[in-house]
Amino acid sequence: MSNQLGDAKKKLNVAIVGGGLVGSLEALYLAKRGHRVSLYEYRDDIRNTPLARGRSINLALSIRGRRALKDVGLEDLMINQHGIPMRARMIHRPDGTTYAMPYDPRTNQCIYSVGRNYLNSILLKESENLDNVERYFNHKLVKSNFKDGSLTFMKMDTKESLQVNADLIIGADGAFSTVRKEMMKQPLFNFSQQYIEHGYLELCIPADKDGGFQMPPNYLHIWPRGNFMMIALPNQDCSWTVTLFMPFKNFKEINSEGKLLDFFKKYFQDSIPLIGEKKLIEDFFGGSPSALVAVKCRPYHVCDKALLIGDAAHAVVPFYGQGMNAGFEDCTVLDNLFQKYDDDVASVLEEFSNARWRDAFAVSDLAMYNYIEMRDLVNRPSYRLRKSVDDFLYWLLPDIWVPLYNSVTFSTMPYDQCVRNRQWQNKVLAISILCLGMFLFIILFYYRRSYA
Amino acid sequence: MSNQLGDAKKKLNVAIVGGGLVGSLEALYLAKRGHRVSLYEYRDDIRNTPLARGRSINLALSIRGRRALKDVGLEDLMINQHGIPMRARMIHRPDGTTYAMPYDPRTNQCIYSVGRNYLNSILLKESENLDNVERYFNHKLVKSNFKDGSLTFMKMDTKESLQVNADLIIGADGAFSTVRKEMMKQPLFNFSQQYIEHGYLELCIPADKDGGFQMPPNYLHIWPRGNFMMIALPNQDCSWTVTLFMPFKNFKEINSEGKLLDFFKKYFQDSIPLIGEKKLIEDFFGGSPSALVAVKCRPYHVCDKALLIGDAAHAVVPFYGQGMNAGFEDCTVLDNLFQKYDDDVASVLEEFSNARWRDAFAVSDLAMYNYIEMRDLVNRPSYRLRKSVDDFLYWLLPDIWVPLYNSVTFSTMPYDQCVRNRQWQNKVLAISILCLGMFLFIILFYYRRSYA
Repeated sequence: MSNQLGDAKKKLNVAIVGGGLVGSLEALYLAKRGHRVSLYEYRDDIRNTPLARGRSINLALSIRGRRALKDVGLEDLMINQHGIPMRARMIHRPDGTTYAMPYDPRTNQCIYSVGRNYLNSILLKESENLDNVERYFNHKLVKSNFKDGSLTFMKMDTKESLQVNADLIIGADGAFSTVRKEMMKQPLFNFSQQYIEHGYLELCIPADKDGGFQMPPNYLHIWPRGNFMMIALPNQDCSWTVTLFMPFKNFKEINSEGKLLDFFKKYFQDSIPLIGEKKLIEDFFGGSPSALVAVKCRPYHVCDKALLIGDAAHAVVPFYGQGMNAGFEDCTVLDNLFQKYDDDVASVLEEFSNARWRDAFAVSDLAMYNYIEMRDLVNRPSYRLRKSVDDFLYWLLPDIWVPLYNSVTFSTMPYDQCVRNRQWQNKVLAISILCLGMFLFIILFYYRRSYA
Repeated sequence: MSNQLGDAKKKLNVAIVGGGLVGSLEALYLAKRGHRVSLYEYRDDIRNTPLARGRSINLALSIRGRRALKDVGLEDLMINQHGIPMRARMIHRPDGTTYAMPYDPRTNQCIYSVGRNYLNSILLKESENLDNVERYFNHKLVKSNFKDGSLTFMKMDTKESLQVNADLIIGADGAFSTVRKEMMKQPLFNFSQQYIEHGYLELCIPADKDGGFQMPPNYLHIWPRGNFMMIALPNQDCSWTVTLFMPFKNFKEINSEGKLLDFFKKYFQDSIPLIGEKKLIEDFFGGSPSALVAVKCRPYHVCDKALLIGDAAHAVVPFYGQGMNAGFEDCTVLDNLFQKYDDDVASVLEEFSNARWRDAFAVSDLAMYNYIEMRDLVNRPSYRLRKSVDDFLYWLLPDIWVPLYNSVTFSTMPYDQCVRNRQWQNKVLAISILCLGMFLFIILFYYRRSYA
């Protein structure tokens, strides 16, 4: 964490739009640098409200997120007091048998299942300890002008209007960002939003009657079924948040209790007694599947006044567990740039925009790819062979051969470099196999000749 | 062209937003089917106004556009009385020498340079001959509701508001479509807008003092210079519209008259006396380069009420000369679907959405690729060798081997199939070269053996 600003230096008035995970973390980073931060959130204070359905309840925290929490002094609180370590994937076969695939057999590193609400609350609470952060809940952004740095909010309760001015506006308002919508009016703003054909629906495996876990807790459980899958992450109260990912058209086809039970009996037999038949029917038909969108845009800034971070800049599909981690890493990268440029906003924003998109695009593509790995490839012998080779080479050459998953999840190597790393590894393996083949061919040739 | 509707059939009230090329053509198609069409245009009637700077003055009309014009009985008027045939690319080398590359040496087909204003005027004028088309100029769309098919326009002169209801809303309002912005609020709407790093600036080569062309007229003139290029298309008044395509940063670097002339002397020497030094300086510094955007989205429709066509659905960069042609083809495809489904809007819209995007995505990618071909590859021996092979095989097997450019420009093969066609041709060529290589190797081997 960089030092606080001296009194002589200009303190910026920063308006952060969005008080979710990334917005409230960025508030801490900036406040700790000595700037004055106002945090505006459209919803009520998350500490007063139950979680809205359709937003994931728990998240996988890995090294990039942990590094950011460490920077603001909250890593221990999250990891040791709240996070549930997951050291391996636990694969559930259709017949109910399972096997584990460790994430990192070499050093036994793990990812942590953390509650979204809890993490958000911790971050907001920490900001209350700082004099230079103000929080405004129930404030909806209705108008913005990036040229003069003015924002107009509507107070959701009184419908009053509030106009504020800021030296810097940070849009951390999620995948459907209002700040980004305003940025789209700028010339030369590249943007894409891509929905996948799959939706997701959350179910729940409750704690057992003694208040304990019904499945081994230190795993991310996966039921890979080719074109769809189910996963489960452990919660602090020993329940599991279960998420079913499936094409929307398949969700539609399951339109009766009978069909639902038949479907679960065929594909997720072992989960039925854990969820409970009645609860399964209630939860399945009680909600409708939510959509999954990937957002890419570029640049992330306008003039020296406004910047997008987190999902507002690069929402990704959730299959690499990197959405929050990438958003938190944005805050770390930004803090490093504030340090590098001595809080000169124009330089910070320009370099962030010019550099960060490569990593954001890379993690987005990785997340798309990982859905296929999780729901399908993970079942295939070729995948398991490759994983064994990767794990062996990683054990043999830990500094040289870092497998893709490990570089993304357990290192802070830029995402873009993780991808290029993997491409290089693929080439090495292909050439090695070719050389090995030729070697065997030559051996065989001379062997036959010498006996001819 | 399909038949008019019988009296018994339901006549639809169709509101077309956008009275540009595609909107006014679609009005004719629908009116000729017997539907009642209201055409709303944000600008004034193009017949009363000079062309806005920054929109291309002339366009290349090829077979897809011609087919649509033929359907509404306007092909002869455009081609014979107005279009200027271009039968080849005329490549200008830096030293001022030129050579021609015919588009279609086999059957000598050509593309036509047509004026945007003239073509738009012809289409609007034709609609005045039909009782069931109403035109509303200076009407800006300010609000739309696709559920009940209501649209609110503001009259630009009086600032009055006009609310209308329609059975079908067609958004033909260009790359920055207002109708599409409303559609983006729908769930599961995929969208991307991608700006390229190059901008364009229009210059002019006037007619000579006798009122004739200063360059051979039946060519599309190209000055390919690697990372940038200039092109010229002939106009009816014997002037040329010259367009310089170049990265924005290069435009920026040319910030003085001296630098401009040095630049032109180095790269476009032969064009300076044609444009005239004074006019070159005036036109170059009189405007600023415009941006080029490619838009992809999916689906194109909402419920059975609203549909996007033309640039609103799929704006492409201009390097294949297919933007207008693809938009006109949308109208033809739609007309065929209206015929197929007997004017059942829901079926028409759904099939258009489900089928057309593949071709739209394909032509967009082709246009991106063709920029590299036009500004760079065209200069390379490998490109010219491939073109010779393609032309020879096309001459030999005209039904089997249609080169990419010819399939896109001189056939109505769906764009997506043109691309797959090319991929298949690439494979055949690669295998042929491999086989030829092996054959030569074997010949050589036996030849040496028999003399050994």
